[in-house]
Amino acid sequence: MSESPSTLQPGDVVMLVDERRKQFILRLESGAELQTHRGVLHHDDLIGAAWGSRITTHLGYSFVALVPTLYDHLLHLRRQSQIIFPKELGYILLHLAVGEGATVIEAGSGSGALTVALAWAVGPAGHVVSYDRRKDLQDVARRNVEKFGLEPRVTFHERDIAEGFVERDAGALFLDLPDPHLYLPQVRAALRLGSPFGAILPTANQVSALVAALDQNDFARIEVCELLLRFYKPVPARLRPTDRMVAHTGYLVFARPVAEGAGAALGPDKPPDDDIAPA
Amino acid sequence: MSESPSTLQPGDVVMLVDERRKQFILRLESGAELQTHRGVLHHDDLIGAAWGSRITTHLGYSFVALVPTLYDHLLHLRRQSQIIFPKELGYILLHLAVGEGATVIEAGSGSGALTVALAWAVGPAGHVVSYDRRKDLQDVARRNVEKFGLEPRVTFHERDIAEGFVERDAGALFLDLPDPHLYLPQVRAALRLGSPFGAILPTANQVSALVAALDQNDFARIEVCELLLRFYKPVPARLRPTDRMVAHTGYLVFARPVAEGAGAALGPDKPPDDDIAPA
Amino acid sequence: MSESPSTLQPGDVVMLVDERRKQFILRLESGAELQTHRGVLHHDDLIGAAWGSRITTHLGYSFVALVPTLYDHLLHLRRQSQIIFPKELGYILLHLAVGEGATVIEAGSGSGALTVALAWAVGPAGHVVSYDRRKDLQDVARRNVEKFGLEPRVTFHERDIAEGFVERDAGALFLDLPDPHLYLPQVRAALRLGSPFGAILPTANQVSALVAALDQNDFARIEVCELLLRFYKPVPARLRPTDRMVAHTGYLVFARPVAEGAGAALGPDKPPDDDIAPA
Amino acid sequence: MSESPSTLQPGDVVMLVDERRKQFILRLESGAELQTHRGVLHHDDLIGAAWGSRITTHLGYSFVALVPTLYDHLLHLRRQSQIIFPKELGYILLHLAVGEGATVIEAGSGSGALTVALAWAVGPAGHVVSYDRRKDLQDVARRNVEKFGLEPRVTFHERDIAEGFVERDAGALFLDLPDPHLYLPQVRAALRLGSPFGAILPTANQVSALVAALDQNDFARIEVCELLLRFYKPVPARLRPTDRMVAHTGYLVFARPVAEGAGAALGPDKPPDDDIAPA
Repeated sequence: MSESPSTLQPGDVVMLVDERRKQFILRLESGAELQTHRGVLHHDDLIGAAWGSRITTHLGYSFVALVPTLYDHLLHLRRQSQIIFPKELGYILLHLAVGEGATVIEAGSGSGALTVALAWAVGPAGHVVSYDRRKDLQDVARRNVEKFGLEPRVTFHERDIAEGFVERDAGALFLDLPDPHLYLPQVRAALRLGSPFGAILPTANQVSALVAALDQNDFARIEVCELLLRFYKPVPARLRPTDRMVAHTGYLVFARPVAEGAGAALGPDKPPDDDIAPA
Repeated sequence: MSESPSTLQPGDVVMLVDERRKQFILRLESGAELQTHRGVLHHDDLIGAAWGSRITTHLGYSFVALVPTLYDHLLHLRRQSQIIFPKELGYILLHLAVGEGATVIEAGSGSGALTVALAWAVGPAGHVVSYDRRKDLQDVARRNVEKFGLEPRVTFHERDIAEGFVERDAGALFLDLPDPHLYLPQVRAALRLGSPFGAILPTANQVSALVAALDQNDFARIEVCELLLRFYKPVPARLRPTDRMVAHTGYLVFARPVAEGAGAALGPDKPPDDDIAPA
Repeated sequence: MSESPSTLQPGDVVMLVDERRKQFILRLESGAELQTHRGVLHHDDLIGAAWGSRITTHLGYSFVALVPTLYDHLLHLRRQSQIIFPKELGYILLHLAVGEGATVIEAGSGSGALTVALAWAVGPAGHVVSYDRRKDLQDVARRNVEKFGLEPRVTFHERDIAEGFVERDAGALFLDLPDPHLYLPQVRAALRLGSPFGAILPTANQVSALVAALDQNDFARIEVCELLLRFYKPVPARLRPTDRMVAHTGYLVFARPVAEGAGAALGPDKPPDDDIAPA
Repeated sequence: MSESPSTLQPGDVVMLVDERRKQFILRLESGAELQTHRGVLHHDDLIGAAWGSRITTHLGYSFVALVPTLYDHLLHLRRQSQIIFPKELGYILLHLAVGEGATVIEAGSGSGALTVALAWAVGPAGHVVSYDRRKDLQDVARRNVEKFGLEPRVTFHERDIAEGFVERDAGALFLDLPDPHLYLPQVRAALRLGSPFGAILPTANQVSALVAALDQNDFARIEVCELLLRFYKPVPARLRPTDRMVAHTGYLVFARPVAEGAGAALGPDKPPDDDIAPA
């Protein structure tokens, strides 16, 4: 474990945070400087400083140097459309990622939050293919992927998936589109049967439409769920949830395409609730 | 994407599911056979069959051949203690995993659900170190890790973490113990400052104790949260949540160790709620 | 406050609870006796005993004498159909009950949980009218209302509400039916305009149908919500939610019929969330 | 049901709502007028208008005339302190209100939201006693009670409950104070044994302290819960929860004082979850 020294080195990606939670994520480069609203920071002053230590601008303003995680990065992605949030992303990764070397397809690219998370998760031997028919959105996703140096793992197609996916036998496929129920034949053609399909949808009506189409297109093990994340005020003597929370980002739908008629062998779908109950 | 053929091959890991959600996960091996409650399945009959297709035992009983995901695997781990569930695992991975090649420490090993997920996430260039003072539990974790062939990525220490961790400058550290507040000096010694620390705790009292200790031990950006997962009955014309759900598995706590006194530069902790709100 | 003596009197309604939460609710009557699975209790032995004290059967088995609340009663109603639960009942009462002396209409009668709660809430000067086209269900409701001595406050109509309600200018109206969207003209004819209408529905599809019909039938201030009740294990040193909880009983919909076209003056409906946020 | 005419009469309490959800609740009085930000409304113009109809100011601005419910009133109470919200109020009423004619004690008076709801619920034959040691707060509660004409049903005591309650054998008692665990002997002296006690508390630490004190002071059937209210956007074709919601107002605690030692006959407390599950 010696390859992670306790001081900042050129090339390290560091997150600087101030007392108002203002954050900067930057890659250290000798000679470069960061302009903040509270003064200038010379990268050379950061290099050699200890991780976790306090850094001060020429105006005497303080930041603390933290290691950015994927979670931090995702929350600071440039957005041009609603992004998928970490509470869903982690769950999607577990459901879809069949392991390293997997090939995963997504549509649309959106702002690239899921693209980045998938590219991060499939590893250097895996691959992500991202479809969007809108060039402007896909350019945002592409730039976000490049910011992480993950572009070797991602292929972007500017293409309407109504025309079908180019790939065959993909390991997983995720749709973040308003009308995923329209593209299930295309999904079946691209995704290896038995492999995980997922979608995120904001409204109950869309969920109904998708579940109906999944039933008609030989998908099995249909699972519909939502995740609620509640934060607490971290005050030991007065522990309590925050006053307000995010009530909804989207419903998640997962299913597996199976051979024609094979779904009947699985019986009616039922929620997997009992499978995951505490022992 | 040609390396994933649409038929089952020797060496493939397949999940067989029947109409009652009974599941078998097995690695195909020419000549082997699987005894089920509903008859025998010869691996050779499976090899060459299509993914997603219906497989029939010699008694005429049907299974469908699906690709198991990490999610499926985790729900079928052999358990000897309460495991961390997928809804938390995905979120923990996003918070902790600093990327491929990361070194992550966990204690205790428990039944190994988190060990497996971490080993899966850090990739072949990363490493997981898992501590437990109980050999019997750690043996369960070890066997679960081996089932996935992930043992090259995991080092097990049978050791009380009160005596300290062996590692230095680790990239992330997670505690699944009843009393994590007792071991924060040890955590600081093992974890690179500025890097993510996490814990899961069943009771509010434990959360209070941990948050108080984090405050006293120069940890910053303390985040306390819980995740609720609600399933829906996947019936298009009668979409509704299930009757009952899991109400609680645990509270999650995340924080970063920082240099002594540096936390003051970050101001009082506040929940990150606004950071993650829909735009 | 002298009219509530601290000892049990003939005519008092008492709830006897044992260590397994087995409960009996009975009205004390000199000379009567209660047969339990753990022995006989003579009412005369109860009369004169202190409220809150331990009562022992002739077999030495103990009960504690508690004052039953409406909540206790509702949970022990004889049921022949799904009942509305206390978490919803209290909220419905606040939304619907325009005060003492109010006239409230409900359909269907169901098992009478809402009938009882409404009759209790409108007071002796108010009145509840309960419709059901099924005599068998209504008989259950009627018996439950009689058990509380509330029958002077309730009129039962065995009648299909498609034929219209008999009443005019009612103060509130609640529908617990599968298809409330079919009866909104009848609701408008029976309910004084501007007064509260409510419904409970298990599925999202039914909610969509009802909201669409409300829009088309000049109802305004449409509110759709759900209530989640989470219990905690009452252990001071290990405070935590229960493992499992009820995930769903029903969606609640509230609205007000207004004069034709008047709804336009209220603008588009929006959820009242901000109105009720903590200050 | 003829006593509720369909037109507004002098003495009627009406709620006027505009398109921005601005609301006025007023009692109609011949000759009076209401000054709004959008022009003047003469009560005489309202009298005789139909309930639910559109009313226009002299500036041409529209309101709709609705019947205010207790729910509407509570949301528009003058507040000087955090109030208890309708989602909790309805549930508290069901748990505490032992029927008409009941005597209920509360402390502190706060802004009077609970006082008003209790006075409304106990009916004309019941009585509410409200304690607060702060005159300024109690004056707000008193004015709110008077606004509803409920003052004949309420007695206010400006008194520290550490000195005890004046009453004996009350039917129910509710504490909305930061430290209810300090006053349980006083509660036992005032509340008839076996009758419902309740409290609302914002933090988990306070809940732990109260539950411990309840255990030590011979209270049984301890129940701890929280209520979450989630609103939906009432759009039929795009039904979905609101983006954000109230995450927490308070934990509710209920219990019954029993005779000394009688609690042992009830066994350890357990959450009533199963009692209320859907059938």
